[in-house]
Amino acid sequence: MSGNVADTNSAWIADKCWMLGHEVVWHGGVGDHTDAIGDACMLAEKRAEVVFVTGGLGATLDDITVESAAKVFGKKIILHEDIWRGIQDFFKRVGRECTENNKRQAYLPEGGKPLTNTVGTAPGVQVKFGKAVFFFLPGVPKELFQIFGDSILPWLAERSGENVYEQRFLRCFGIPEASFDERLKDIELGDVRMSFRVTFPEVKIKLVARKCSCPPPHCRRAGIYGAKEPMNSGPINRATTNISNVEKQIRARIGEYIYGTDDETMAAVVGKLLLKNKKRVAIAESCTGGLIAHMLTNVPGASNWFERGVVSYSNESKMQILSVKEATIKKHGAVSEACAREMAEGVRKISGADFGLAVTGIAGPTGGTKEKPVGTVHIALASLKGIEHVHCCFPRDRESFKAIVAYEAMDIVRRTLM
Amino acid sequence: MSGNVADTNSAWIADKCWMLGHEVVWHGGVGDHTDAIGDACMLAEKRAEVVFVTGGLGATLDDITVESAAKVFGKKIILHEDIWRGIQDFFKRVGRECTENNKRQAYLPEGGKPLTNTVGTAPGVQVKFGKAVFFFLPGVPKELFQIFGDSILPWLAERSGENVYEQRFLRCFGIPEASFDERLKDIELGDVRMSFRVTFPEVKIKLVARKCSCPPPHCRRAGIYGAKEPMNSGPINRATTNISNVEKQIRARIGEYIYGTDDETMAAVVGKLLLKNKKRVAIAESCTGGLIAHMLTNVPGASNWFERGVVSYSNESKMQILSVKEATIKKHGAVSEACAREMAEGVRKISGADFGLAVTGIAGPTGGTKEKPVGTVHIALASLKGIEHVHCCFPRDRESFKAIVAYEAMDIVRRTLM
Repeated sequence: MSGNVADTNSAWIADKCWMLGHEVVWHGGVGDHTDAIGDACMLAEKRAEVVFVTGGLGATLDDITVESAAKVFGKKIILHEDIWRGIQDFFKRVGRECTENNKRQAYLPEGGKPLTNTVGTAPGVQVKFGKAVFFFLPGVPKELFQIFGDSILPWLAERSGENVYEQRFLRCFGIPEASFDERLKDIELGDVRMSFRVTFPEVKIKLVARKCSCPPPHCRRAGIYGAKEPMNSGPINRATTNISNVEKQIRARIGEYIYGTDDETMAAVVGKLLLKNKKRVAIAESCTGGLIAHMLTNVPGASNWFERGVVSYSNESKMQILSVKEATIKKHGAVSEACAREMAEGVRKISGADFGLAVTGIAGPTGGTKEKPVGTVHIALASLKGIEHVHCCFPRDRESFKAIVAYEAMDIVRRTLM
Repeated sequence: MSGNVADTNSAWIADKCWMLGHEVVWHGGVGDHTDAIGDACMLAEKRAEVVFVTGGLGATLDDITVESAAKVFGKKIILHEDIWRGIQDFFKRVGRECTENNKRQAYLPEGGKPLTNTVGTAPGVQVKFGKAVFFFLPGVPKELFQIFGDSILPWLAERSGENVYEQRFLRCFGIPEASFDERLKDIELGDVRMSFRVTFPEVKIKLVARKCSCPPPHCRRAGIYGAKEPMNSGPINRATTNISNVEKQIRARIGEYIYGTDDETMAAVVGKLLLKNKKRVAIAESCTGGLIAHMLTNVPGASNWFERGVVSYSNESKMQILSVKEATIKKHGAVSEACAREMAEGVRKISGADFGLAVTGIAGPTGGTKEKPVGTVHIALASLKGIEHVHCCFPRDRESFKAIVAYEAMDIVRRTLM
């Protein structure tokens, strides 16, 4: 209510519900006031059969969600000794002091079922209030996701109705969003829904098709929430086939911009390609300041294909570690094609890696000139076959500049390995 | 409702309202259905004197917000020829084709006042429905911000009542949230409100005090919405004084954990201290994989105090660039106090920087052993005065581990420079 935090939980929950064929009809937000929370819960109970309530399960005095809701439905809250012991154990395990405050989290409404929280202290609660099933969940996204995934997704899947969906994301980089409409306007969609989502600096194409209208056990076999039984044939394959048909058409038009699908990151795709080709990369970054190395090393197992990174911010470090020639910097400047080439070849040679990737540019907000405005960047990729060079200009704020340059640089490695 | 987009507009609007003394009591979201939109507007009119409605002002057929709201309050919508001409001009200016669809955006409810949109085509609308003043605004954040800033902020400021607020954030690192309550429980707050917000891995303490109860012109002079007149004295200073008094008490108890205020990042604070002390830092990262360098180089002007970074992922790079001894790695392993010390001293010496900061650890999910479990990390800071060393364990997922280690490492530099 104060605008300090944007609510991203609602969208996350809605996405999960929708994929399992449950329609989300309403969401609302209120402050930490007993009456406001009670009113919102009463209203929700009238509107839907299932209600998710997030936030306010913490250990401090303004965490009053569960007791406020219980009160309005005329239920008591009861101390669960086993939960209280579990909370004390949790604190012992992480070596922190457990205060009397934390005991608040061990109180559940009568008839409530605790939902195990393996990430934090407050368990979720499932309880019937009036005609609706209420789920009370922590507001901390990580805890919410864990409890939702472990305890609620299976419950929702068992109750999934006629409209269960399959979706696929095609992740694109390097094509302006506005030209998407143009390039993709005559795609034959059939009953597949196509939409776009921009998460700078990439664009995701979302394809959705209805999966089946069979009774729930079938949907569960389809692997919707990760069951290990084999995929069923028939209606499911129809959805998969429909999506694949649309994907094929899209790839025929803009395939070179599609770097991955679903949850694959650009860094993970680059890592997978390096691993598959038994190659290693070393990096010399100037203007991205370590971001490329950071993104690549977010991928588990990166040490198998990421040899080293050098954040050569000063000219001395470029000369000393990467053997960039002083004359090159004097003649062309540190932001130049010549310097990028020497950085890439330098980091490749000293590291013994197969690829040397280098970026040098002007992130801004200051440091630009008429010839080299803020946003100028030179990217070079060195290998045994020679050195490739790209010159771009992304006149953006500092952090957006770093992000788009990091993607551009990784994309060059990806295209080379393809 | 489908979970494709998280709503960040609500929080943005709430923040603006709250700072001008308007209490936000409720927010709700519904899908693009006439009845649902109508119901939500009726409910809002009963709850508040001012209602903001965002989204659904576009040119496509599912943009039905204004007409749905008008319908439920029994109002007609009327074509405004001048708006329609303005929309056609806009398309001419940007060189795009204006379709008949765009004409929808020129219809306003009777009695409605258009609010100029300089960024896109759909104007906002101000209209009285029932007892409340409704503002209809585009959902595209850029357009919403422009219309809100130009047309609505002044309107809200003129009506700001008794509760105009001042706020301050104290940003803390290294103290568990639960122990906050304990340590801060006897603070004399007076009329200052104190609350906590966790944005991993840090905790923000928010202090809020009422600013003044003078008539609006005064509040405007106070610079609340960017007026250029000087700050007024008197009641405003009282709010500032009250917050400062609470801040003083808090600092007396947990001051060592407070690294900055308001929008200052840990990296910016470290940079400011380095600049002030005319020192430069060089970094050798293993497990954080470039994240520390990335965070530091997000600060504009970092090149004045950040000399270089080395992401020494492979053992070879540790030995080659940082002069870590092969014997050290053989005897103690790469994740060890001895290795961290040699990395820190190594990067300091080759760079000529005043400080050498090094981290080496096990980010996981694999690579842990019984003696060195996932989450183990050694941090070392070398200077002319010698080498400081810290050994921690943060058994967390890979990205959280990197984040908390990066903070811990920067915090050591901060404390040293304090």
